[in-house]
Amino acid sequence: MSGALEGVRVVDLSHVLAAPTCSMYLADLGAEVLHIEPNNGDDSREFGPYVGNERDKNKSAYFISLNRNKKSIVLNLKDKRGKQILRDLIKVSDVVLENFRPTTMKKLKFDWPDIQKINPRVVYCSICGFGHDCLPQYSERPAYDMVAQAYSGIMSITGPENGVPCRVGSSIGDIISGLQAAIGILAALIYRNESGRGQYLDCSMVDALFSVLENAVARHTVTKEIPGPLGGAHASVTPFQGFKTKDGSWFVAAIGNDKLWKKYCKIIDRPDLTNHPDYATNLLRTENRQELIPVLSEEMVKKTMKEWVALFEEAQLPYSPINNIKDICEDPNINYRNMMMEIDQPGIGMMRIAGSPIKLSETPGTVYAPAPALGQHSTWMLKEILGYSSEEIDDFKKELVISDGTDGA
Amino acid sequence: MSGALEGVRVVDLSHVLAAPTCSMYLADLGAEVLHIEPNNGDDSREFGPYVGNERDKNKSAYFISLNRNKKSIVLNLKDKRGKQILRDLIKVSDVVLENFRPTTMKKLKFDWPDIQKINPRVVYCSICGFGHDCLPQYSERPAYDMVAQAYSGIMSITGPENGVPCRVGSSIGDIISGLQAAIGILAALIYRNESGRGQYLDCSMVDALFSVLENAVARHTVTKEIPGPLGGAHASVTPFQGFKTKDGSWFVAAIGNDKLWKKYCKIIDRPDLTNHPDYATNLLRTENRQELIPVLSEEMVKKTMKEWVALFEEAQLPYSPINNIKDICEDPNINYRNMMMEIDQPGIGMMRIAGSPIKLSETPGTVYAPAPALGQHSTWMLKEILGYSSEEIDDFKKELVISDGTDGA
Repeated sequence: MSGALEGVRVVDLSHVLAAPTCSMYLADLGAEVLHIEPNNGDDSREFGPYVGNERDKNKSAYFISLNRNKKSIVLNLKDKRGKQILRDLIKVSDVVLENFRPTTMKKLKFDWPDIQKINPRVVYCSICGFGHDCLPQYSERPAYDMVAQAYSGIMSITGPENGVPCRVGSSIGDIISGLQAAIGILAALIYRNESGRGQYLDCSMVDALFSVLENAVARHTVTKEIPGPLGGAHASVTPFQGFKTKDGSWFVAAIGNDKLWKKYCKIIDRPDLTNHPDYATNLLRTENRQELIPVLSEEMVKKTMKEWVALFEEAQLPYSPINNIKDICEDPNINYRNMMMEIDQPGIGMMRIAGSPIKLSETPGTVYAPAPALGQHSTWMLKEILGYSSEEIDDFKKELVISDGTDGA
Repeated sequence: MSGALEGVRVVDLSHVLAAPTCSMYLADLGAEVLHIEPNNGDDSREFGPYVGNERDKNKSAYFISLNRNKKSIVLNLKDKRGKQILRDLIKVSDVVLENFRPTTMKKLKFDWPDIQKINPRVVYCSICGFGHDCLPQYSERPAYDMVAQAYSGIMSITGPENGVPCRVGSSIGDIISGLQAAIGILAALIYRNESGRGQYLDCSMVDALFSVLENAVARHTVTKEIPGPLGGAHASVTPFQGFKTKDGSWFVAAIGNDKLWKKYCKIIDRPDLTNHPDYATNLLRTENRQELIPVLSEEMVKKTMKEWVALFEEAQLPYSPINNIKDICEDPNINYRNMMMEIDQPGIGMMRIAGSPIKLSETPGTVYAPAPALGQHSTWMLKEILGYSSEEIDDFKKELVISDGTDGA
């Protein structure tokens, strides 16, 4: 495997989702990611579903999906020899990544001033809910993705119009902060390769979601408006939303401009609407949305999904079925693009997980190795990376400084 | 401004949102982004809100938010001299970025095989709906963010339980594909700096959203389950959702484990629930959610937001108000972290836009320059970057190869 990030080594003190997402991107692109786990393993090893429905730290599909391509060491950071091993690993690494509470790394004596002394070339990235550099009242405040979604404002614009604010169906507070962490780390590596100096990256889940609110922020700062949720619709384009079809499926018609509107009126057999004084332009259609949508809904329910797909295809109108998770996992184009990949996971056999979206022509992001069993690479890291002797390694194991942790149960 | 990406030059053939998001991250980190615009400008110059409510291509708050820090040239790519200028710019650049339909760059003779000949060191990134390398039936298919949200499955898990599938309230298909494009480009630059070779990056909005479905994919592949939307709630943790308060606000209680549950029962004054046989563990609470949530809702509506905040703070329980866009724009911590920044936008004056979430200690992402007026840097680019004479530049302007386009109206 020749990845774009070959030669980049990452000390990954991460758990569950935000930082593991970041290190997954780095590992998919060829970085050597050393996942440091506590004796019980990354919490996400406890998250279902388990393959074969058997509660086993090495069989969580959630953990496996996120930790493919990484290596695992079980390291006791409460022991001073464990701390020394961590220092040794940081000395020979390029990136350190963590998503503990803001106080944890400080208590362990591994916050940025400490790490900088160990290796000034390292890029050190933290991800937490409200940022490490924050107002005092936020520094101890516990945060989950749900908290970040609520706090950031994204829930206030997601959900049915005038209805209950909805969570985005996946943990995008974690995921987007992980993506932004990867961007910051890679930019800092480019800078480090020139200047010789590492630096500190302070990511926050709330910042992450605030930064993707799109025009909601500008709409508020410029017009003082407070945007709310619009269900499946778009704030300024109409019709641009899901409709129920004859067979009970949901179908999105995305009629982005007046030329498309003309074609659309034709295929729904309502040419009378094309130049209707209330609906002739997108601006009018959006203003009169409350009256227009019921009229269109009545037309859209007259044909099945399959019939609408054929008509929209023929007219080259933008559309989509609202796919469910089964539909998209089985989708021919998603599979053609290797967005579903098979891995041969030890103890499990072949299983399908999501692939990498980083489709580079020479060094594509890919799944080239299974997820590690808990502590699978403890001995390997100490021997091959740090050059400890077999006797020293055996002593560490006896004294529970490291563990092979091969029994996942 | 000394940014991490200083010295990186980007030819940015982008419009509206996906590719402009990517180039915004690169520009915020110090890359020199040359936004190539057609005579009418990037379409998003037509998107409201306009500052001062005046329809002017240089006053769209949407465009300004996304294009701060960039430079603009109006270049006629239908003219062969315009094409030559583009070739000249690519020769002295590191990155080329575009988000046209898949056929556009090919027709212009600027797809990857062509660009590779112009500058083999360049990283060339395309973003489109279904990917450039796709099954034939997708190659001409029009896609908007709304189409990608519907197609990818994310709408099928967002919205009220058993209700209408909802769009995520911002265009995350565009935005996440833009973030992933930035990750791929930066990784490819690291590789290029070592190997001397550029490469092609093929991003898709549907891949982007598919890749953030989180455990929904594993749940389906492992258990065959088809996850649906859960409103403001979490699939496997209870209570972990929004509740209405006495004053009509929404308040998220995120009770992530049984220890927190015990504390929570105490502050809602229902110690009888703590060890209730149906609710004592998270597994039980999640199984019996339909019965439990109405009971809790009845308690949560008895106090105001302010009262709950005080109680949750005291008990150190994870919580959040469901902030609206005004709340978050005015939030003290968001402002402390420079997530709202002021820019002095020519022709407008001071205005507030979202800042950069890439908080690097030495070279933070930041807003260091206003958004360009349409064509503001046409002359500058030809003179300073390409070394054309004033006579040549005047001829180009007379013959509409380039334009200063200073009149934004």
